[in-house]
Amino acid sequence: MLKVYNTLSGKKENFIPINNNTVKMYICGVTVYDKCHIGHARSAVVFDVIRRYLIYKGYEVTFVKNFTDIDDKIIKKSNETGRSWKDITKEYINEHDYDMKLLNVMVPDYVPRATDYIDEMIGMCKKLIEKNHAYEINGNVYFRVKSFSEYGKLSGRDIEELKTGTRIDVSDEKDNPMDFALWKKSKDNEPGWESPWGKGRPGWHIECSVMSSKILGLPFDIHGGGKDLIFPHHENEIAQSECAENSRFAKYWLHNGFVNINKEKMSKSLGNFFTIRDITKEFEPETLRYFLITTHYRSPLDFSEEQLIEAENALNRIYILLDNINNHKTGKKGNDLRGEIENLSDKFFHSFTSVMDDDFNTAAGLSVVFDYVKKVNIFLENKPDKKSFEILQNETEKIISIIQSTLGIITKTPEEWFRANLNINEEELLSLIEKRNQHRKNKEFDAADKIRDELMKKGVELLDTPEGTKYRTKRMHLSSPFISD
Amino acid sequence: MLKVYNTLSGKKENFIPINNNTVKMYICGVTVYDKCHIGHARSAVVFDVIRRYLIYKGYEVTFVKNFTDIDDKIIKKSNETGRSWKDITKEYINEHDYDMKLLNVMVPDYVPRATDYIDEMIGMCKKLIEKNHAYEINGNVYFRVKSFSEYGKLSGRDIEELKTGTRIDVSDEKDNPMDFALWKKSKDNEPGWESPWGKGRPGWHIECSVMSSKILGLPFDIHGGGKDLIFPHHENEIAQSECAENSRFAKYWLHNGFVNINKEKMSKSLGNFFTIRDITKEFEPETLRYFLITTHYRSPLDFSEEQLIEAENALNRIYILLDNINNHKTGKKGNDLRGEIENLSDKFFHSFTSVMDDDFNTAAGLSVVFDYVKKVNIFLENKPDKKSFEILQNETEKIISIIQSTLGIITKTPEEWFRANLNINEEELLSLIEKRNQHRKNKEFDAADKIRDELMKKGVELLDTPEGTKYRTKRMHLSSPFISD
Repeated sequence: MLKVYNTLSGKKENFIPINNNTVKMYICGVTVYDKCHIGHARSAVVFDVIRRYLIYKGYEVTFVKNFTDIDDKIIKKSNETGRSWKDITKEYINEHDYDMKLLNVMVPDYVPRATDYIDEMIGMCKKLIEKNHAYEINGNVYFRVKSFSEYGKLSGRDIEELKTGTRIDVSDEKDNPMDFALWKKSKDNEPGWESPWGKGRPGWHIECSVMSSKILGLPFDIHGGGKDLIFPHHENEIAQSECAENSRFAKYWLHNGFVNINKEKMSKSLGNFFTIRDITKEFEPETLRYFLITTHYRSPLDFSEEQLIEAENALNRIYILLDNINNHKTGKKGNDLRGEIENLSDKFFHSFTSVMDDDFNTAAGLSVVFDYVKKVNIFLENKPDKKSFEILQNETEKIISIIQSTLGIITKTPEEWFRANLNINEEELLSLIEKRNQHRKNKEFDAADKIRDELMKKGVELLDTPEGTKYRTKRMHLSSPFISD
Repeated sequence: MLKVYNTLSGKKENFIPINNNTVKMYICGVTVYDKCHIGHARSAVVFDVIRRYLIYKGYEVTFVKNFTDIDDKIIKKSNETGRSWKDITKEYINEHDYDMKLLNVMVPDYVPRATDYIDEMIGMCKKLIEKNHAYEINGNVYFRVKSFSEYGKLSGRDIEELKTGTRIDVSDEKDNPMDFALWKKSKDNEPGWESPWGKGRPGWHIECSVMSSKILGLPFDIHGGGKDLIFPHHENEIAQSECAENSRFAKYWLHNGFVNINKEKMSKSLGNFFTIRDITKEFEPETLRYFLITTHYRSPLDFSEEQLIEAENALNRIYILLDNINNHKTGKKGNDLRGEIENLSDKFFHSFTSVMDDDFNTAAGLSVVFDYVKKVNIFLENKPDKKSFEILQNETEKIISIIQSTLGIITKTPEEWFRANLNINEEELLSLIEKRNQHRKNKEFDAADKIRDELMKKGVELLDTPEGTKYRTKRMHLSSPFISD
């Protein structure tokens, strides 16, 4: 049985959807004013794996991820560049979609944009004012935090403690410093929409309350996002929605951990961040995706060049296995290892499902994968007979297809993978291989070996097979380091 | 080798992407002012199968499908209902996305909306005016058809013939009646955007030229849409893009055929249309999807209730086979049929690929599937031994997974399928089954048979198995006809 850690209860719970076999999920998306960084990549890949695994388990999943296309940062960029907010957000929506495709993240079923839901947000503000959960002052509308006795239930924060906290912006006009904005009056030259309270724009939190309930209905099954969103964003979403709609909001709250760089929390404001585009200039996107799932989604993830090199070499091991299987020749005589391979495969299925059922433990899932890789390598050395080898091929194919559909990796053939990871020009390489083979024919073995050794230094390993010389890649170091100390 | 029929050349051609292994496709999407009908469903499913098959063949596909979110019909609906165009289009974008999920259509990688590209459309108009391919008059901008000598190359229409045609709106202000609008002056109270020619809005054709080139770059591999779009829409897109960008536009032009109802072309304006929502009230969405691929995508598709019932019963045959395999018990003794099943499976792969390679012939692809189904039924009657049966299970699993990934059908387990197709309440059914089993225990066989026969009349067939009584569905007629004569 699948168990998920629910931030709301602070425990792992059995996963039981609200409505039979359907799972409705809402994930907080990005604010579109710049290229996505590795923090965005982590959240996107984590919830993509969760979505994929739920589908694999047989659930019918509806997946919504929004775009925040109006907010202070977008307005700031608009003022700095003289471009309209619309123009900026359109550009970065496309950049985001490009990054998601790179990372093999499935497209959401719905991608609502905040500015398409202004009327509904105004509607929710009105409802909250009518029910006395909110009030208007000087064209701003604030949520009255004290009116919701359960405020703090997600983040575990205490209202009284919050009051004296420093993170709350103290504004004179609010009844209470904890109250937060549902609707903000637009300044001159700022984008704004007509409302009963004059020209203004939505506060950030209200968009997710509105878009999730309009598209999924209340209550829905899973609300997800980065840990940094628990407070105040998700706490405020709960307050708004549960007060306005007289319904529970979301059943399970899932949050992914931070990304650390040199042991420090990565953040845009600290300036220690890397974009997906930076990283994929040097590494295959699949390597980045793999790296992002090597750690359990709730744990912090330490980002470094070494980790990415390790990720690439780990993927190499899987692709080498597939390549070995593709090139394997069974002899006339061999051992009947059918029981053995069936046993290996059964063990894989059982272990993989059981660790993934434990709150989507991809780190353990990958260990199960490598356990299989290791055992199959030994299996191949034990000279399987034709029938046993065929079963191995079949079972491996099934296993790879499950890895593809749940983890979203191993999407290439071994040849495509090694070609993609070449750090030298392929034509040049092929002509060096040609030259080396000429040397070998002429019995000039020293010259031939020299070529092989120099290629090895560049991370290219040559293999002489009955079908000719093939190559594999093995990265030793970065061609150009991108993390400066 | 994959061959596709290219409307541009009027022949089947070998499919060779512009850039190695990548395929960039742009499909004309819907105008969002009403629920999608079966014509939209056909186009969506057809190009989804094409996309899926290309992915299956190993291509890296980028798939763009736009939303037309400003045009005359939207403005008309806005005037009639008093709702803003933005509000209307948002609603029907969500309705569209819902329908696509019902039909198991993969979400596009990019879903640009026309109104997000107004600046770029103005830019293209300016470019065309500068190059003397277009001219402004009274706030309208027109494309000068005579300035593009290749005009007509897609549709095969002759410029001189067109001139006297009645389908071209004769407007006094145009230099030539064939010229078409790139930019239209907004009437009072109509939505509009500022432009060098005053407040206006884009003509329909320009949006696709702009969005495809901005997102995919020129030239791209496949441009698709319904046959009704060949002229003037796609012809005009080619003229605009090739004149503005000095590049070829799209390499392959693919068009799907019409849907006929009672032998008449279905169309919104004729009023003889059905929405996806109408049909899926009565039928499983998978049945509709299946029906849509029973005919080659370029041929006209005859829609009728009988065809849908036939489609459901055809799917039943596949699900019954899977159910039979799941419930099959091999005896202690059996026949060694390994060669036979391997042969069946090889034949499936070879035939399926070869017909799908022939311009995505899904109709023939489904015949290959049913050929396999028929042969496996015979195979099961021939009492395979344990090993042969295991290979059958394995091969069938692989084949179903290919059917799922390319055709997008057989997405359920047999139990889910039969439950979904029940036309009576399941609890009631289960209690009738219970009652019948009680009768059988008491040897009241007449009473037991009566229950079975009455269920049969309602389209539910009972099967007594060692694990208890199971049910399957078989539709005889509609519970409520929805095509009136």
